[in-house]
Amino acid sequence: MQCIERIADLRRAVKAARREGRKIGLVPTMGALHCGHAALIAQAAKDGCFTIVSIFVNPAQFAPNEDLDRYPRTLKRDLQVAAEVGADLVFAPAAAEIYPAGFNTWVEVEGSLANCLCGASRPGHFRGVATVVLKLFNMTDPDQAYFGEKDYQQLQVIRRFAQDLDLPLKILSVPIVREADGLAMSSRNKYLSPEERSVAPWLYKALRAAAEAAASGEEDIQAIRRYALDRIASQPALQLEYLEIADGDSLQLLHELRPGAVMLVAARLGNTRLIDNIRLI
Amino acid sequence: MQCIERIADLRRAVKAARREGRKIGLVPTMGALHCGHAALIAQAAKDGCFTIVSIFVNPAQFAPNEDLDRYPRTLKRDLQVAAEVGADLVFAPAAAEIYPAGFNTWVEVEGSLANCLCGASRPGHFRGVATVVLKLFNMTDPDQAYFGEKDYQQLQVIRRFAQDLDLPLKILSVPIVREADGLAMSSRNKYLSPEERSVAPWLYKALRAAAEAAASGEEDIQAIRRYALDRIASQPALQLEYLEIADGDSLQLLHELRPGAVMLVAARLGNTRLIDNIRLI
Repeated sequence: MQCIERIADLRRAVKAARREGRKIGLVPTMGALHCGHAALIAQAAKDGCFTIVSIFVNPAQFAPNEDLDRYPRTLKRDLQVAAEVGADLVFAPAAAEIYPAGFNTWVEVEGSLANCLCGASRPGHFRGVATVVLKLFNMTDPDQAYFGEKDYQQLQVIRRFAQDLDLPLKILSVPIVREADGLAMSSRNKYLSPEERSVAPWLYKALRAAAEAAASGEEDIQAIRRYALDRIASQPALQLEYLEIADGDSLQLLHELRPGAVMLVAARLGNTRLIDNIRLI
Repeated sequence: MQCIERIADLRRAVKAARREGRKIGLVPTMGALHCGHAALIAQAAKDGCFTIVSIFVNPAQFAPNEDLDRYPRTLKRDLQVAAEVGADLVFAPAAAEIYPAGFNTWVEVEGSLANCLCGASRPGHFRGVATVVLKLFNMTDPDQAYFGEKDYQQLQVIRRFAQDLDLPLKILSVPIVREADGLAMSSRNKYLSPEERSVAPWLYKALRAAAEAAASGEEDIQAIRRYALDRIASQPALQLEYLEIADGDSLQLLHELRPGAVMLVAARLGNTRLIDNIRLI
């Protein structure tokens, strides 16, 4: 497996793979790879792609008060993980390679899709995501790109701009990978103290309670929300940021349950921000 | 020469040309083709490209008070012109093909480059330009794209986002084509009454006077500007919007003359807005 730091070298590697008739699969990550990332990489490899994993902690998607500096950076281990599950190439550029002096162009997804939920509490976050992901697309020219469903709103924002900007590629998603106790895998789980770690699975317990209520025939949105809210309220350490039921494509909040409805939650646990989601019906 | 209205057909035509080993050249236009456009198309053809001319009056780059509705639309004649000078394909989509329902993604070039000069008087204009040009790039995947130097700031904005977004293509520019009396060719020249048409060349006369002063050794920016301003002031019908001397790449206003300096001007003549520019040294 190659590890490359420069865009010019990346382009050369992509060209070489194309010459061999390979299709290109891209898995954009911020590193600190866990089993969720591994599932994305393995899926790309299984799909027969020349599988490129980008590892870049993107400053543009962090607000000044966020965790850019302490975000876990574990490149050496990441390279092992990526190789083990079938990556052909890791692209791990420095920030100056991605945002050289004079950089001044941004991709903005407007409307509620990018401005509700996480977009409301993290202004500029999805602009940073969209910009770096478009840049990675343009560097690697992938046939398909893989994203995890844990970052559900991010996935929909990326689908939106890929469609709006006529990008000739497929956006593929892979289901959330969870710990045995239900906690969605996340690089930020490393921040949790043992005590917080024991509370964290309640986020998924809350989502499950709501999904089970919906599966049992409960149709009232507020009643379904209450199942989840009650579980979260039972854990005082969980500070709820939002818990909403939205259309799975547009993320418009729903007033009536309908197919494609997704429940999305964000909460703080100490200094750590956790998100999760579940399809209701 | 093919004329195509749908993105899917355009992609097929590009693929077919690629299979034949052709490189792709794109000339984005808003139609009402004149000799300036013809020079761009002819250059692409001369460069050996499979030459695609897009004709799309882009609503996103017009403000509500601007001339979107009356902008000249002369498709039938445009097709003749494009064919005569060597285009292989004209792409003339409807607005709904480019901006379907739900469209919500924009490319923003920030900083003074896009916000000075025309950007200051036409807020949102370059955002509309950058967005549609990026879309056209993604639809046609060109090796090179051709832009006229009359829209000098537009050219620099496009160079900026093409670099910032890592687009794997060359941005090529072609010098301004002028009428015999010096007026820069523009689709908007059609708006001019015979009286206005006789005044319009004074814009270029003003730029020439400044350039000649610089060529004769005048180094004082304000003195050079005055040569041009005096010529414009001699024609009361010309309402000056701006006349500046700027660095040709960054468009930062210059306080001292230096290589690469460009003088840029915008003025109204009746209801018509005219722009022009000249390299000083």
